[in-house]
Amino acid sequence: MKNCIIGQSGGPTAVINASLCGVAAKALNSEKIGKVYGAINGIQGVFNENFIDMSTILKDDEAIELMKTTPASYLGSCRYKLPKLDADRKAYEQIFEVFNKYNIGYFFYIGGNDSMDTVDKLSRYAAETGYDISIIGVPKTIDNDLMETDHTPGFGSAAKYIATSLREIGLDSDVYDLYSVTIIEIMGRNAGWLTASSVLARDEHYKAPHLIYLPEGEFEDEKFFRDIKALNDKGIKNVVVAVSEGIKYKDGTYVCESASSGLTDTFGHKCLSGTAKVLEDMVRTKLGYKARGIELNVGQRCGAHFTSLTDIEESFAVGQAAVSEAENGGTGKMMIYVRESNNPYKISIESRDIKNIANGEKIIPQSWIVNGNDVSSEMIEYISPLVEGQPKLRYKNGLPVYLKR
Amino acid sequence: MKNCIIGQSGGPTAVINASLCGVAAKALNSEKIGKVYGAINGIQGVFNENFIDMSTILKDDEAIELMKTTPASYLGSCRYKLPKLDADRKAYEQIFEVFNKYNIGYFFYIGGNDSMDTVDKLSRYAAETGYDISIIGVPKTIDNDLMETDHTPGFGSAAKYIATSLREIGLDSDVYDLYSVTIIEIMGRNAGWLTASSVLARDEHYKAPHLIYLPEGEFEDEKFFRDIKALNDKGIKNVVVAVSEGIKYKDGTYVCESASSGLTDTFGHKCLSGTAKVLEDMVRTKLGYKARGIELNVGQRCGAHFTSLTDIEESFAVGQAAVSEAENGGTGKMMIYVRESNNPYKISIESRDIKNIANGEKIIPQSWIVNGNDVSSEMIEYISPLVEGQPKLRYKNGLPVYLKR
Repeated sequence: MKNCIIGQSGGPTAVINASLCGVAAKALNSEKIGKVYGAINGIQGVFNENFIDMSTILKDDEAIELMKTTPASYLGSCRYKLPKLDADRKAYEQIFEVFNKYNIGYFFYIGGNDSMDTVDKLSRYAAETGYDISIIGVPKTIDNDLMETDHTPGFGSAAKYIATSLREIGLDSDVYDLYSVTIIEIMGRNAGWLTASSVLARDEHYKAPHLIYLPEGEFEDEKFFRDIKALNDKGIKNVVVAVSEGIKYKDGTYVCESASSGLTDTFGHKCLSGTAKVLEDMVRTKLGYKARGIELNVGQRCGAHFTSLTDIEESFAVGQAAVSEAENGGTGKMMIYVRESNNPYKISIESRDIKNIANGEKIIPQSWIVNGNDVSSEMIEYISPLVEGQPKLRYKNGLPVYLKR
Repeated sequence: MKNCIIGQSGGPTAVINASLCGVAAKALNSEKIGKVYGAINGIQGVFNENFIDMSTILKDDEAIELMKTTPASYLGSCRYKLPKLDADRKAYEQIFEVFNKYNIGYFFYIGGNDSMDTVDKLSRYAAETGYDISIIGVPKTIDNDLMETDHTPGFGSAAKYIATSLREIGLDSDVYDLYSVTIIEIMGRNAGWLTASSVLARDEHYKAPHLIYLPEGEFEDEKFFRDIKALNDKGIKNVVVAVSEGIKYKDGTYVCESASSGLTDTFGHKCLSGTAKVLEDMVRTKLGYKARGIELNVGQRCGAHFTSLTDIEESFAVGQAAVSEAENGGTGKMMIYVRESNNPYKISIESRDIKNIANGEKIIPQSWIVNGNDVSSEMIEYISPLVEGQPKLRYKNGLPVYLKR
């Protein structure tokens, strides 16, 4: 009987541990799987043979429930990128030596785009070398930008946090009788799903956010001012604007580039921040209004005090399904959600070849963008079911209790 | 029978409407009070005779419950400062003309330091001119910096939001195996109560925030680096730092001054922001660590999705008590909390002369600051009971429902 390793990689989410829990709980009960190891800091834990026996963590139902609602990667994470297979095989040899030493027949990697690149490369190496192993990717990203899957685990909770924050900031920004613009910067480099989810803040009473700018559109300063003025003309004095950190001008430069540090991360992505502050300055200078730029920041991905029960349950289920897929001999796959129906909301979980997913990026269809400053009703129908339900948290001294390694 | 006016003023909180609700519900049931008017945008609503009949808003128990958990000033707010009484009496004459016109015998003003200045001036003017009116201040501020009262309505909910966010950010910042410093900027210009409340994020499992810097202390760059290095020496790689937006150097200049805009608000306060970003840059440049500055921003005052039930109930009660005080002929007073005991936690509500409160500022005693980078156990005992209890929210489509004017 072969053993298994589970790793978490990339930026954490509020529900990535629900998936860890789904994989581990199912693997611990599997008749085909022996020991269940958690790799500390993702693939780095494999290099360093730094493992934790998951049976010592998920000791009882209480531990499982607590793990499901604990934010941030319980096992730790990494941003390690494997070299190209044909360029340098040394890292691969090292990894598979460890796999061999620990009799590993199952490897589950919970992560986003960059992590699926690791799943792709490792499964191709295994196939080439004839190493018998099931390598399965479990999706995770608040960004909702993974290919093939209807949506990603972590997105629904982030969307709920964002929409609720926008509703609250909308009320907060409306208390003074003056002209103001409040700009809320939301995560999302190239895909605007998170920013689009701010639309859920609206209903018959709340009109904020009044404007929504996505990275899939082209941002234009003059149109931005016209959009604000048009709202003023309709009697709306306090304008609330949701913008993606990654909004760009027609020539492809990021709006924030004047203010950002020019740093890049280990994957070569530009570090973006300051979009809201740039627009705040712009509004203050050009329109003379009171302006406030707000970065929602990491609360979007770690705000476990306020998540979607739907998201947590699905994230747990997709972890379990990954184990079933591996038990049935699948490899080189990522698990995906398929939306069966929207009313009532129902999904199923399937798997897809990782090669069609790794390094891809799902962005918002142009037909869902309205006037360059709003989203369509399809977007609302798409996101709405993902934020439903409130999980029960455990409290101690008034604060939520989370599991700590 | 005389009528009453209620106004809200200054920055909103997550529970200022619980106090509005307490005043209005009690006043509507009072045998001594006739009509209950809400002034739109605080004292500006009095100038403009822009009133709302509160009996049309608080129609039933459901409306009352919804109002209690609605963030941001329901009636709107203002930052209007009355001129000095001996300098210009015109504004006063205008206000009291309106009071006379609407047969006002009771004026309740819910706000912070600057609003209590208004209560002080109006009650002095009434005394001087012999106008028969009860003018009562109802405290409100997340900053907890009002004199005389044990704590302020709004502080407990903000403290809970901050401590919970710090706990979550602490977990989030700890996922990578590298040296990093995460700096969380918390509101509080001269009083560090909110920043101090981050200490509740800690318990036997969570060590973040590792460092807490308050405006009551003297910030020193070199000591900051030494504090970080000392933690590194103890094996703590990912350091989480809670800082007040108002931390200052020995010479009195704000740490953020290099980055802030130089703008001042209508009360002449400097607009502070960017402290976390300044420290982020400092850490990156001087220590070469990964660094992230996070401004918790307006969520601290409007995060109604996650408040303290204790705070909401007390805020409602202090509003009710203000009406009792007025019924008994009190004027020129602010209601205060008196802590009767800490274990079990018990408060009573009394009133104090406004002249000892207006324009004062309660800061943290030096004896509660430890090593210039932490707070004492007295602080923990003081804040802990204020964050207890979770209010029941109403949800629709997965999001909290709030009352909108």
